Amino acid sequence: MEAERSLRHECGIFALDGDADAARLTYLGLHALQHRGQEAAGIVARDGETLRIHKGEGRVHEVFDDAALRSLAGDSAIGHVRYATAGGGGLVNAQPFLVTTRDGNIALAHNGNLTNARALRTEMEERGAVFTSSSDTEVILHLFAASEQKTAINRLVDALRQLEGAFCLVMLVGRRLVAVRDPWGFRPLVLGRRGDTWIVASETCAIDFVRGEVVREIEPGEMLVIEDGAVESLRPFAKQERKACIFEYVYFARPDSVLFGHDVHEARVRMGEVLAQEYPVRADVVVPVPDSGVPAAIGFARVSGLPYAQGLLRNQHVGRTFIEPTQRIRDFGVRLKLSPVPSVVRGKRVVVIDDSIVRGTTSQKIVRLLREAGATEVHVRISSPPMTGPCFYGIDTPDKDQLVAARMDVARIRASLDCDSLAYLSIGDLRRALGTAGRGTCDACFTGDYPLRPADPAASAQVPLFPPAVPAGYSR
Amino acid sequence: MEAERSLRHECGIFALDGDADAARLTYLGLHALQHRGQEAAGIVARDGETLRIHKGEGRVHEVFDDAALRSLAGDSAIGHVRYATAGGGGLVNAQPFLVTTRDGNIALAHNGNLTNARALRTEMEERGAVFTSSSDTEVILHLFAASEQKTAINRLVDALRQLEGAFCLVMLVGRRLVAVRDPWGFRPLVLGRRGDTWIVASETCAIDFVRGEVVREIEPGEMLVIEDGAVESLRPFAKQERKACIFEYVYFARPDSVLFGHDVHEARVRMGEVLAQEYPVRADVVVPVPDSGVPAAIGFARVSGLPYAQGLLRNQHVGRTFIEPTQRIRDFGVRLKLSPVPSVVRGKRVVVIDDSIVRGTTSQKIVRLLREAGATEVHVRISSPPMTGPCFYGIDTPDKDQLVAARMDVARIRASLDCDSLAYLSIGDLRRALGTAGRGTCDACFTGDYPLRPADPAASAQVPLFPPAVPAGYSR
Amino acid sequence: MEAERSLRHECGIFALDGDADAARLTYLGLHALQHRGQEAAGIVARDGETLRIHKGEGRVHEVFDDAALRSLAGDSAIGHVRYATAGGGGLVNAQPFLVTTRDGNIALAHNGNLTNARALRTEMEERGAVFTSSSDTEVILHLFAASEQKTAINRLVDALRQLEGAFCLVMLVGRRLVAVRDPWGFRPLVLGRRGDTWIVASETCAIDFVRGEVVREIEPGEMLVIEDGAVESLRPFAKQERKACIFEYVYFARPDSVLFGHDVHEARVRMGEVLAQEYPVRADVVVPVPDSGVPAAIGFARVSGLPYAQGLLRNQHVGRTFIEPTQRIRDFGVRLKLSPVPSVVRGKRVVVIDDSIVRGTTSQKIVRLLREAGATEVHVRISSPPMTGPCFYGIDTPDKDQLVAARMDVARIRASLDCDSLAYLSIGDLRRALGTAGRGTCDACFTGDYPLRPADPAASAQVPLFPPAVPAGYSR
Amino acid sequence: MEAERSLRHECGIFALDGDADAARLTYLGLHALQHRGQEAAGIVARDGETLRIHKGEGRVHEVFDDAALRSLAGDSAIGHVRYATAGGGGLVNAQPFLVTTRDGNIALAHNGNLTNARALRTEMEERGAVFTSSSDTEVILHLFAASEQKTAINRLVDALRQLEGAFCLVMLVGRRLVAVRDPWGFRPLVLGRRGDTWIVASETCAIDFVRGEVVREIEPGEMLVIEDGAVESLRPFAKQERKACIFEYVYFARPDSVLFGHDVHEARVRMGEVLAQEYPVRADVVVPVPDSGVPAAIGFARVSGLPYAQGLLRNQHVGRTFIEPTQRIRDFGVRLKLSPVPSVVRGKRVVVIDDSIVRGTTSQKIVRLLREAGATEVHVRISSPPMTGPCFYGIDTPDKDQLVAARMDVARIRASLDCDSLAYLSIGDLRRALGTAGRGTCDACFTGDYPLRPADPAASAQVPLFPPAVPAGYSR
Repeated sequence: MEAERSLRHECGIFALDGDADAARLTYLGLHALQHRGQEAAGIVARDGETLRIHKGEGRVHEVFDDAALRSLAGDSAIGHVRYATAGGGGLVNAQPFLVTTRDGNIALAHNGNLTNARALRTEMEERGAVFTSSSDTEVILHLFAASEQKTAINRLVDALRQLEGAFCLVMLVGRRLVAVRDPWGFRPLVLGRRGDTWIVASETCAIDFVRGEVVREIEPGEMLVIEDGAVESLRPFAKQERKACIFEYVYFARPDSVLFGHDVHEARVRMGEVLAQEYPVRADVVVPVPDSGVPAAIGFARVSGLPYAQGLLRNQHVGRTFIEPTQRIRDFGVRLKLSPVPSVVRGKRVVVIDDSIVRGTTSQKIVRLLREAGATEVHVRISSPPMTGPCFYGIDTPDKDQLVAARMDVARIRASLDCDSLAYLSIGDLRRALGTAGRGTCDACFTGDYPLRPADPAASAQVPLFPPAVPAGYSR
Repeated sequence: MEAERSLRHECGIFALDGDADAARLTYLGLHALQHRGQEAAGIVARDGETLRIHKGEGRVHEVFDDAALRSLAGDSAIGHVRYATAGGGGLVNAQPFLVTTRDGNIALAHNGNLTNARALRTEMEERGAVFTSSSDTEVILHLFAASEQKTAINRLVDALRQLEGAFCLVMLVGRRLVAVRDPWGFRPLVLGRRGDTWIVASETCAIDFVRGEVVREIEPGEMLVIEDGAVESLRPFAKQERKACIFEYVYFARPDSVLFGHDVHEARVRMGEVLAQEYPVRADVVVPVPDSGVPAAIGFARVSGLPYAQGLLRNQHVGRTFIEPTQRIRDFGVRLKLSPVPSVVRGKRVVVIDDSIVRGTTSQKIVRLLREAGATEVHVRISSPPMTGPCFYGIDTPDKDQLVAARMDVARIRASLDCDSLAYLSIGDLRRALGTAGRGTCDACFTGDYPLRPADPAASAQVPLFPPAVPAGYSR
Repeated sequence: MEAERSLRHECGIFALDGDADAARLTYLGLHALQHRGQEAAGIVARDGETLRIHKGEGRVHEVFDDAALRSLAGDSAIGHVRYATAGGGGLVNAQPFLVTTRDGNIALAHNGNLTNARALRTEMEERGAVFTSSSDTEVILHLFAASEQKTAINRLVDALRQLEGAFCLVMLVGRRLVAVRDPWGFRPLVLGRRGDTWIVASETCAIDFVRGEVVREIEPGEMLVIEDGAVESLRPFAKQERKACIFEYVYFARPDSVLFGHDVHEARVRMGEVLAQEYPVRADVVVPVPDSGVPAAIGFARVSGLPYAQGLLRNQHVGRTFIEPTQRIRDFGVRLKLSPVPSVVRGKRVVVIDDSIVRGTTSQKIVRLLREAGATEVHVRISSPPMTGPCFYGIDTPDKDQLVAARMDVARIRASLDCDSLAYLSIGDLRRALGTAGRGTCDACFTGDYPLRPADPAASAQVPLFPPAVPAGYSR
Repeated sequence: MEAERSLRHECGIFALDGDADAARLTYLGLHALQHRGQEAAGIVARDGETLRIHKGEGRVHEVFDDAALRSLAGDSAIGHVRYATAGGGGLVNAQPFLVTTRDGNIALAHNGNLTNARALRTEMEERGAVFTSSSDTEVILHLFAASEQKTAINRLVDALRQLEGAFCLVMLVGRRLVAVRDPWGFRPLVLGRRGDTWIVASETCAIDFVRGEVVREIEPGEMLVIEDGAVESLRPFAKQERKACIFEYVYFARPDSVLFGHDVHEARVRMGEVLAQEYPVRADVVVPVPDSGVPAAIGFARVSGLPYAQGLLRNQHVGRTFIEPTQRIRDFGVRLKLSPVPSVVRGKRVVVIDDSIVRGTTSQKIVRLLREAGATEVHVRISSPPMTGPCFYGIDTPDKDQLVAARMDVARIRASLDCDSLAYLSIGDLRRALGTAGRGTCDACFTGDYPLRPADPAASAQVPLFPPAVPAGYSR
């Protein structure tokens, strides 16, 4: 699925308190979270009472140069990587946000999606608020600034209690670093250490990358207040049923992360194993769609006894500036990203393994690619269930009518892919593969069983809140 | 004085309603106002109900490319050029501002400086406001959003009535373009037409440049509401004594503008004439400091009968990326910007004419340059009075202790410049040169007679309001 | 090995005659050859009698934008990708070369390395030649221009007959496209078609990528003259023993290419199989160094019966602008490029498979990485023999004293890597794995059996010919 | 005339021997020569025996950054600024040239134009030479490399004796810096000192700018060989009649330069004085076309007794990236560069002074601009004769059929400009104004009296020599 990036996370966050190189370590941490967002990146560093920001559109190594990192002095920092959605992109929505309120300067970075953002926003506007972006994050800041509680922490709790939906956030306020995970626990958030330094990150791989140790998952509904090297844990929210995102296991999280307490890579290999048990096929070779299909293909090969082979090569990263061929020499499509290895597939019955199908167009092209390279049969096996609904909790899915499994049953999808057979894991298969990791998860995108419904689902999940004011872009 | 840019305006504004090429004409208009601000530029265009923005750091032709202008569709637009002050620069303070309030999307661009900005800001923060910049403009937007008046125009009036200080502003709200000039009239603002299109600009040269006709000055305290081709004039403020900035005549306004109803170039030539009448000198040649000293030097030569000559050349624009020579080959200073013409000054008694002296360092270097090129005597004549105080109404002056005339009398300044004689116009001379143009002006920077005092003068005029949150910069 | 890029090819070439989109197809072809050179790229297109060039430093998609491709009109084109060697990089050595001689405008692109370049160059200089680069390619052009033969083709033959070493070249001269492979056949060169269009490329993957058909290998010592859709084959050289580069099989060629008539991917899987047969090990898991170790690891796992697993992840491409961590937080090294997957290696005996070891520093870091991630034993298996000597035929190898296998025997290398066991394929094993593909190959880097010796080996292979005139770089 | 840049020099050169900051001083010197070429700039520095180069397209401060200057270590340097002609631009023709010949590494920079370049080039090609550019400079290098003389200096003399036309050149060869001016002395070249450092420059203003002292003009036909702080003067050429370019006085040289021994600014003021004596007019005000018309306007005003005034303002430098208005709002033309000052010209009879008319289109627009701003009469006075022929000696003039004075007499030009009167200086007037400075000059562009004729004039002067190989551009 990676080849087309149909699904894109909206955020990764990283924060750190207690190292004189706070911004540089945050830069490295964000690099390790780059898979969670490649459209914009930003860091706020705190030096005594001064907050300094640098953010921009692009990937981490494009946004920051040495001068930028040097300017971000201080021993605390928060950072953010994000995807821009079609209508709400641009620098104006890049994070962290840095603002002034009666609490002085505040920096906030947020991963998630609020289901009641629009209602809260309208309410704040009625009270005289001025919004400068379409971001949910700004809604949180307004609730915080408007709270009549006496202390900054109480104002933050007051604000957060009004939120519904997915939110993992890190905040610099006064001398504190605050980290919060919503009571449903949709998105991952972990605590780590590196000597005397506290680290908060979306995934464990970022803590590993900066050579820290993972301490533990931050619990759903937990708020950590880090100050002067001490961590205080608060539980400001009413308890909710745990709803950790099952799709993080299927695709999003990095395979070397420990997610919600479980190994991601191992989970994916098991998905491939179950897939082979439940949907076996007479074939000659098992080929993954690189890179996301690799672990499940290994599992499939292991159980099926079929040889695993590298039948599709991922091409060099072509970058955003690649010039697409003209109309006359068009139809390159997926070829720019994937090349078949003829010696592997020629004359073979090929099982091709992918983690998921979103729109179906890429899978279609892959089947054709393999046939053109000489495969005699192509059997598609998907290591997750058919995706039938959008996510309202922080993943940027296409509209429901673009999800192929929302429009067709498996037989018709098979026909449209023109493959010899097609099978998905069922939701039961997936849960079985996950074992204990599958408990307390949100599987709404596969089952339609949404734990929280946006008042106006389209609005919250898909439609940018700021449509009449789309920034045309910023130069420099 | 231009050679050192010790004084820098903070803004120029341009707005236009009723032309399908609104953004392109605004681009041209801003180009003609480039002398009023070279650090950042921005345009918001209105296309039906959609507002689109493009802004960036740099000069107008650097910030906008063709793609940017194409993206700014629509038949109304407002634009802004600005200087960044030391602490408050960066894209975060670039204008126009584009925000959402209960009135929907609002765009605002502002030229001036509020003397009560800090107090208003603190008051809004207490009420729960979230500020994203240190700009006075955002204060105005918050007052507008928080007003409990029933209509957008009444909310704007309510907001503006709370302001003290200099403000010329243009605003897109709903289907209207609004233009306002503060009741003291510190900064210029003019109304023009171009066929059926209404234009508002800081100076007439911008209206001339887009081939429009100047209709009239927008009066101090006047608010124009332009909608569907009609202009309504409102007078929402209590009447105040007119306080048009006298320094616009001396230096800031472009010589081809008609300012507050009077020709700028003609006024400057007359300043040079009065200077020659009152402070004559036995000399061989009159040399202007290019480009700002040229008109006064022409006037001086005309009355004194001395020959006018081009004894100083302005060098090619070196740009911000020019590499300063190393320490070993240093002391280039003003030489990078001005070159003496030896054949003009060698063996001559030179009268050098400039419009003003700010810190005195450039004048010192110019005198040395002329002596090194062979001038036998150097007489300095300044076509304005000694500048003894900062401006609180929209000009970015250095701190008072950096103004040479605030620290020394004329005799000591002469000694520090090492010139053979030095004379300034007195304030009476300047008024006499200006004639009727000199009535109803603010001359506080020369006389200390401030019409409005900031509660905390340092704060309002010099100190950035947002010091702990200086953005380190943005990439792209 | 890819993680460190210790060995880098010097070139890939692509040429095409007979398509109105010649430059765009060449752009695509060069993209498919990007693995053969990432430091510079260039295309010359021929439009009637006009040759136009665009070249620059960087990767193909960085060097060309749409305007550049549009400017390269015409139905013939030649293109080149290259690595810069330490001393001889810069735009001045980027290819193709475009010059004027008595034959008019000539464009030439070359892959290889001449062993008698220095001698020829000195000789030409004595005769009055002016060199503008340190490239072997310019030597060929001078020989061509200085030849006293009567026709352009004869002059080219005259020039080529004086060359010793590796050369695959494509040339636009007059109305012809000429392609030549040296009589030893060191580097690959293939002929393809796409309808009526003839294609010449370093590897078959480039022909596949533009959806052409591979016709055949261009033979060692063959010269093709393509004109008006016809291909003429000449044999201008004395016959030599075939010396196809064995290292193309080991590492350089793309796995989906057919090299010297044999499948590359298949050859690599067989190397892993032989490695498992000859150097088995008691272990729990087989882990490739991505991406170059993958096929051999698949082969090793297949024969050994050990499970194949993705125990090392290749990180996102970090780009040249990545800011290395400061000294305080240093020692990231290979971690920036590779991450271990703890769940795969923790508590396991790991066999790690790589295609080759050059300096040994990366292998050392990989072993440490795996141990730190919890591997109980680390066994290194290399799918080629110890590399003991530099290449003089077109691969940019480090100096001999930097090749770890030139300084130590296998036991000492094992100790320096701190791994539990280490084995390389022997040259006999490698030949056995290659089968018929192993016949007529050059294996000098493994055996020291150099078919041609440079007069001054250091000079030809390592030392830039142009040391006193290293260009400091070009802007724009 | 400056407003349209119809005439553009092809080069300025600067060289320096004996200062550890050689490249930085050369950077400053080139900056002072920027008016002689704005399309490309380059420096070669010599550090012991190593030559390093940096060159690029753009202006001096755009091409060089601090890293580039740091890389150019050494105590000798030569530099060059140039204009690109239509067909022969691009980096490939940027100077200096850095090549290898039997004399080792050689760097050469050249200002001028050879009238026998094409013939020499063809001859060298016949002898087997390879040309990489269309530049005359490369022809000189080939003659030098091919000479059979025994020493480098003799080879250079041998080469130079074959040249016809204009050539001022500086060369680094071995340990020497060589400077040569052609025997006719078409272009200026001066010698200066700065302590123990020798300087060679196109104009004295560059020597002044780096705070050196002008020693003397380098004589026509003189060759200086500078080595170890000593200067040797050679006279290798047959004596020719002096033919210093008269147009350097009229327009090209900087007004603060001493040219061929005479003050430029003073010469221009005298041209204006003679113009007023010979072609007086009843008018109200004298207005220069800035900046090139200023000195002559001062002279005209002085003699005529009419007031001098700044009736046209030169606008801010708009840069190459300025977006031209669309068709709908077009016809900005010269307005983007010049603005009339209404208060100066309204209701007035205006004499507008310019240094020359090339195509006539700009003058036409200026007349219209002044009329639209309210001038009642517009009288045009030109401080040089009608330009009737192209230059073959180093100035990039348009084709003869684009020179308005080659197509029309003065009466018809007046009509086409739509001005009330028009007068040019005659060649006799111009000589009279110049006095002794006018002796030994080339005035062929005014008189058709060409001292040397190119075999094929069109080819040498206008047509690029390299038409079939126009580089499409280089990236980075």
